[in-house]
Amino acid sequence: MGRLLVQKFGGTSVGSVERINAVASRVARFVERGDRVVVVVSAMSGETNRLEGLGFDIAKRPSPREMDMLLSSGEQASIALVAMALMEQGCPARSWLGSQIRIETDTNHTKARIENIDVAGVQADLDSGTTPVIAGFQGVTAAGEVTTFGRGGSDTTAVAVAAALEADECQIYTDVDGVYSADPRIVDNARLLATVTFEEMLELASLGSKVLHSRSVELTGKYGVPLRVLSSLTDPAEENPGTLITTEEQAMEQPLVAGVAYARDEAKVTVLGVPDVPGVASKILGPVGAAGIEVDMIVQNAGADGSADLTFTVRRADYERALEILREASGTVGARSVAGDDRIAKVSAVGMGMRSHAGVATRMFDALAAENINIEMISTSEIKISVVVAERYLELAVRAIHDAFELESPPSAD
Amino acid sequence: MGRLLVQKFGGTSVGSVERINAVASRVARFVERGDRVVVVVSAMSGETNRLEGLGFDIAKRPSPREMDMLLSSGEQASIALVAMALMEQGCPARSWLGSQIRIETDTNHTKARIENIDVAGVQADLDSGTTPVIAGFQGVTAAGEVTTFGRGGSDTTAVAVAAALEADECQIYTDVDGVYSADPRIVDNARLLATVTFEEMLELASLGSKVLHSRSVELTGKYGVPLRVLSSLTDPAEENPGTLITTEEQAMEQPLVAGVAYARDEAKVTVLGVPDVPGVASKILGPVGAAGIEVDMIVQNAGADGSADLTFTVRRADYERALEILREASGTVGARSVAGDDRIAKVSAVGMGMRSHAGVATRMFDALAAENINIEMISTSEIKISVVVAERYLELAVRAIHDAFELESPPSAD
Repeated sequence: MGRLLVQKFGGTSVGSVERINAVASRVARFVERGDRVVVVVSAMSGETNRLEGLGFDIAKRPSPREMDMLLSSGEQASIALVAMALMEQGCPARSWLGSQIRIETDTNHTKARIENIDVAGVQADLDSGTTPVIAGFQGVTAAGEVTTFGRGGSDTTAVAVAAALEADECQIYTDVDGVYSADPRIVDNARLLATVTFEEMLELASLGSKVLHSRSVELTGKYGVPLRVLSSLTDPAEENPGTLITTEEQAMEQPLVAGVAYARDEAKVTVLGVPDVPGVASKILGPVGAAGIEVDMIVQNAGADGSADLTFTVRRADYERALEILREASGTVGARSVAGDDRIAKVSAVGMGMRSHAGVATRMFDALAAENINIEMISTSEIKISVVVAERYLELAVRAIHDAFELESPPSAD
Repeated sequence: MGRLLVQKFGGTSVGSVERINAVASRVARFVERGDRVVVVVSAMSGETNRLEGLGFDIAKRPSPREMDMLLSSGEQASIALVAMALMEQGCPARSWLGSQIRIETDTNHTKARIENIDVAGVQADLDSGTTPVIAGFQGVTAAGEVTTFGRGGSDTTAVAVAAALEADECQIYTDVDGVYSADPRIVDNARLLATVTFEEMLELASLGSKVLHSRSVELTGKYGVPLRVLSSLTDPAEENPGTLITTEEQAMEQPLVAGVAYARDEAKVTVLGVPDVPGVASKILGPVGAAGIEVDMIVQNAGADGSADLTFTVRRADYERALEILREASGTVGARSVAGDDRIAKVSAVGMGMRSHAGVATRMFDALAAENINIEMISTSEIKISVVVAERYLELAVRAIHDAFELESPPSAD
């Protein structure tokens, strides 16, 4: 007996008649091999934007309920087209709206959360040899109102349906091959990771796996559904392993470092000579947060003279505004001055294994030192070590770290 | 207390953001004046064709169930947009899918018939001062499958909802002003009819009122909902009476002749010397019908010699094929020969009043004779007298009949 698979295809994968036919070929191939497949699809690419544009042309702040009604029509068209395409390939299929399945949610329009899924109808389809094609991104409230889950919500649908069906695997088809040990555009010998944990994947988001909606990751973690990210662009007949996203418990291998991530377009600001008394940091950061500026790394060093320097990073686009706010705030708290640099980048080594292994930081810093790259800031979390370097060293730093941990080769079981 | 109106807007009326805003202005104006309005809308013009095109690009004969799923997404978008536009004008509104209302139908996908409507939710909206905006054209089966009613089905939705709500009037907004006494392109002084019966409207279909889905007319007749056809192109502030479609019982005035209709692109075929014995006509017409050729007027004159001539009209596009079939059939039944003319047109005088008044035919034939127009065929029904004339006389014949019955002036109560 084959496996029970949930296969999710995003907007690009169903963006044209040709692409829809390619999705149908891919799905039909699995079915022919004996797998039972549940398909989840997004709206055709561009469609959600088109509909949203119409909504905002009519109203500055359209009713969230009506926005859900409007946007959910996009998947309604694509499920019908995918079901038709499957039938054309001799594969019995049936489309399902979120309200038909039904995928019951709370009443938070445009960002609803799934509360319950009834998979009886979908299961009956599978039992009778019919491939169900489910509209992603949409659900229905107990009162029958159409809701949506926010951008990327089709991933959530796929994972939730997989969990409810206790599927063997939930496959997210995207336009990337999977999760890499580093951005292949920067590191020639970057390796496609066979497996990665959720935590690592989230930290490696800049490497192309940001297709995954964080809510879907949360759900997968909760229900333990094996989740695989793989490419919808390859020949359906070819081997296409992608990357299996595992929970920590499932992970067979826990490499010291799974991959190297980076963030461009960062800036850092430093408030110098901050009086070293309680409550001062929040007086400085408070106005920044209140202005809607996201703060990432925060480092504070107490000086010998009873004052400290407080440095943090913001997005480059927020740099000038952050400086302005800080100049005002620094006066209030009696800091000496404000400085900054808007040509920095963040480079991070990510891996579950580093939690139980000392020496990762040392190896990373040594690698950077060997290339004469000055480290301007350091921040560590459980599974990540991040450094801030001058932006011009970004590529060099990523490659140095990738080399230092030999990420081009599969990890040995150590 | 104002009236309860159901206002239906077709695809052209909601074909762009500007048109949607115009619909909202029009509806809001009625609401401001104290009427309660239920809005029924079609998909944005072009959208149904676009979706249908995608379906046929994927499958030669797409599953009717999936076609309904696909096409019904069109109204889902337009109801949300119209509801948003109403809210922008300060008019509380809420969109309703056929499945939400719910409009329950049989299971005949792509041509479903309404079996039951639950208007409790829509009524609650009205009671709370909210304008419901209903998706036309779509319903749902008892099992929760999405169905559609066929092209023009939004009219059916409007009439059915109006009947269920016992609305004071069902207003069908179109791109014509209403029903005219004759095609204004042919007759300068053609008059917009204040009222017309269903029967007359059906016969006058060529005059621009063919926007009305026959199923909706049937329903209106059954439930006695006053139905008005009027233009969505006029300034919302201007008087816009349109044409009230009445049942015979409701009709206050029964003019002898309500209007003059015509059909171009007709052809006639004659089988000469048909043996005058029972069953012969069906032997001739049978093969024509079997070939899918629609036969309109049929005239048979028995000759003195025990044979007869059988003449009937077909669409011009079917002329050559009809001739071919008849040549074969005429041999079988022993007829003399087959002749035809593909440059004819049909002109009809239509009016409920002619049922109880003799002399209508005479007045009509006199008018044609005065213009030296030869009548090639005559056919009469309860409320219509049709003649076939050479196509080149079409305009002249229409104007002559229009003048003869003084249709430029409102009928006197006689």
